[in-house]
Amino acid sequence: MPQRTVAVVGGGQLARMMQQAAVGLQVRLIALVESPESATAQVVPDSRVGRADDAEALAALAHEADVLTFEHEHVPNATLAALRAEGHPVEPGPEALVHAQDKVVMRERLAELGVPCPRWAVARSAEDVTRFGEAVGWPVVVKTPRGGYDGKGVAVVDRDETVPFPLDAEQPLLLEEHVPFTRELAVLVARRPGGELRTWPVVETIQRGGVCAEVVSPAPGLSPTTMRQAEGVGRLVAEGLGVTGVLAVEMFLVETPGGDRLLVNELAMRPHNSGHVTIDAHTTSQFEQHLRAVLDLPLGDTTQREPWAVMANLLGSELEEPSDAYPTLMTELPHAKVHLYGKEVRPGRKLGHVTIVGDDVDTLRVQAARAIEILSGRRRA
Amino acid sequence: MPQRTVAVVGGGQLARMMQQAAVGLQVRLIALVESPESATAQVVPDSRVGRADDAEALAALAHEADVLTFEHEHVPNATLAALRAEGHPVEPGPEALVHAQDKVVMRERLAELGVPCPRWAVARSAEDVTRFGEAVGWPVVVKTPRGGYDGKGVAVVDRDETVPFPLDAEQPLLLEEHVPFTRELAVLVARRPGGELRTWPVVETIQRGGVCAEVVSPAPGLSPTTMRQAEGVGRLVAEGLGVTGVLAVEMFLVETPGGDRLLVNELAMRPHNSGHVTIDAHTTSQFEQHLRAVLDLPLGDTTQREPWAVMANLLGSELEEPSDAYPTLMTELPHAKVHLYGKEVRPGRKLGHVTIVGDDVDTLRVQAARAIEILSGRRRA
Repeated sequence: MPQRTVAVVGGGQLARMMQQAAVGLQVRLIALVESPESATAQVVPDSRVGRADDAEALAALAHEADVLTFEHEHVPNATLAALRAEGHPVEPGPEALVHAQDKVVMRERLAELGVPCPRWAVARSAEDVTRFGEAVGWPVVVKTPRGGYDGKGVAVVDRDETVPFPLDAEQPLLLEEHVPFTRELAVLVARRPGGELRTWPVVETIQRGGVCAEVVSPAPGLSPTTMRQAEGVGRLVAEGLGVTGVLAVEMFLVETPGGDRLLVNELAMRPHNSGHVTIDAHTTSQFEQHLRAVLDLPLGDTTQREPWAVMANLLGSELEEPSDAYPTLMTELPHAKVHLYGKEVRPGRKLGHVTIVGDDVDTLRVQAARAIEILSGRRRA
Repeated sequence: MPQRTVAVVGGGQLARMMQQAAVGLQVRLIALVESPESATAQVVPDSRVGRADDAEALAALAHEADVLTFEHEHVPNATLAALRAEGHPVEPGPEALVHAQDKVVMRERLAELGVPCPRWAVARSAEDVTRFGEAVGWPVVVKTPRGGYDGKGVAVVDRDETVPFPLDAEQPLLLEEHVPFTRELAVLVARRPGGELRTWPVVETIQRGGVCAEVVSPAPGLSPTTMRQAEGVGRLVAEGLGVTGVLAVEMFLVETPGGDRLLVNELAMRPHNSGHVTIDAHTTSQFEQHLRAVLDLPLGDTTQREPWAVMANLLGSELEEPSDAYPTLMTELPHAKVHLYGKEVRPGRKLGHVTIVGDDVDTLRVQAARAIEILSGRRRA
């Protein structure tokens, strides 16, 4: 029985949740995982242990699959280009993926496309940082162009402070103005190779310590104009970069009496934490949609099924095993949808998430926070 | 990282769909499957090939798991009782499961509980059949007490017709009156060992050739009284038989000018085809609920999220591989939720199902039928 086969690079929670969608669609997943105990290997029978930068491992995967895709961006682009040249579909393609791998390349291209961004520059020396800070105002944001995630590789640097990353003429750092944003938004877009495109409702993301802690869908109190603009930015980026699959565009919203301003912060070309809410709240989840898009299948409806949905991340836990708190959680919140990733507890680690849907956003936020409190072992007396 | 482990006997679509729920709850599933290519083995890494009547295989499974459960009833009860006696949780327990294994035992017990059933008797000889037919009217329904499913082991026998099953004094057949039902209903109940119980909305099931073809949730046009009665029958059976896990109670509805009458037709003690609609239409699916119940975790909310939901089965296909029809299906019906089971196509075989939710039941029924038409390869010109 010939089935569609998707190879996914990465063994974390994203490939794990992709498997739930793959089972429904009868898509065979092959995963390249870091360890046989990884979140993905626990649930994907065809998991192979290997490094994402191992050209041979990637080639073996691509040979067996209809398409090669990713749950993270840390894959050598030259290897992907070589696979493509040999006729193996790689989606998103290396020429699109580079914008999620290198933040300087991303800024250059978004500027060309006319996508609103914070003011930015590259720094090869301490003098470059000072010059930029004096021009746009202190503090400034300094980012390593490659390899960062969840707040890693990002620093806020004030006048006379030292940049905590090596300054090097060969590998410049990215400098960005420190945007006085009032809120953060994210728009999730899915695009097929031929151009078919769907967006989900724009969400508000609440970060703590540089890590996504909570997502509210749709973003509360957004004007229809700003909602449309945010969606438009998502479409523009997806089309401009030629993305296939799911693209997450994270944005700063600056709300002033004179009006709203949107500035693109980060991109991810894969299912993204800001889209976990779609598993339980929307007709088609980001995981199903990513599979459909990279397989060049027609995209699914992205309607939100209830007026509001709130997703909260479980970041670390005082419990040795958060699922030990299921009896309390499930008794108190029988309508909460809990997702744990099979990961060992470590401080601040993304261990799972909870989504709650309903009619009253304030109630849902309280309930989602309570769910996380229970799974964290910080139970009320 | 200690996880809850559930062992499931059976390698079909039910254990396959149970895996999707297990992934979310971070429950490790171990499956005893018929073949390494089975619907379940494709998606459950811990699948072991073995027979459901192999006492050693069952014991090995039970030793490794927190609880042993089933996706079908064809398991030797004595083996289960022995495992229980050794302290291994088996849910539902053998004393409950026997009612889903042996239709005569089921009828006897339902009669004791006062559950409304068709008139019935046992037959050890052709004379017994004739006597019953003359008493309740011809034709009569003849069933083999054990081993039947999807219309197999069931025959409608008219006066002077021969019973197509061996008549044997040792292994009597079950005789039932041929109920002039107007519709068929099913109620799905989940129960924890301690007695906590939840029902889903009562559904209408439409059978073709003795096999479930379509489910409409909730059952259209049912009076509140009949809805309550059907739910009450479900509760009575679940409590009376001491079921743990999901129980499906299939009922005949006889609508007459004088009022409605409900009669229990069949029982299943596991997730059931009439409950597939819960995956996409209700807050908690039957698969998640079954895992929660057998693990003695608090049960989830069973609210239906949209006014109507229709599930249609794919029974055989003229296509070699039904998923080849995805481009057409997904273009025409971007909101349809398709589930294929990874099974080779055979005439009439349950290969998958489609669920569609929305506001207008007639539209949904047309759309679900169209989805099946496409997956069946019976495309309109």
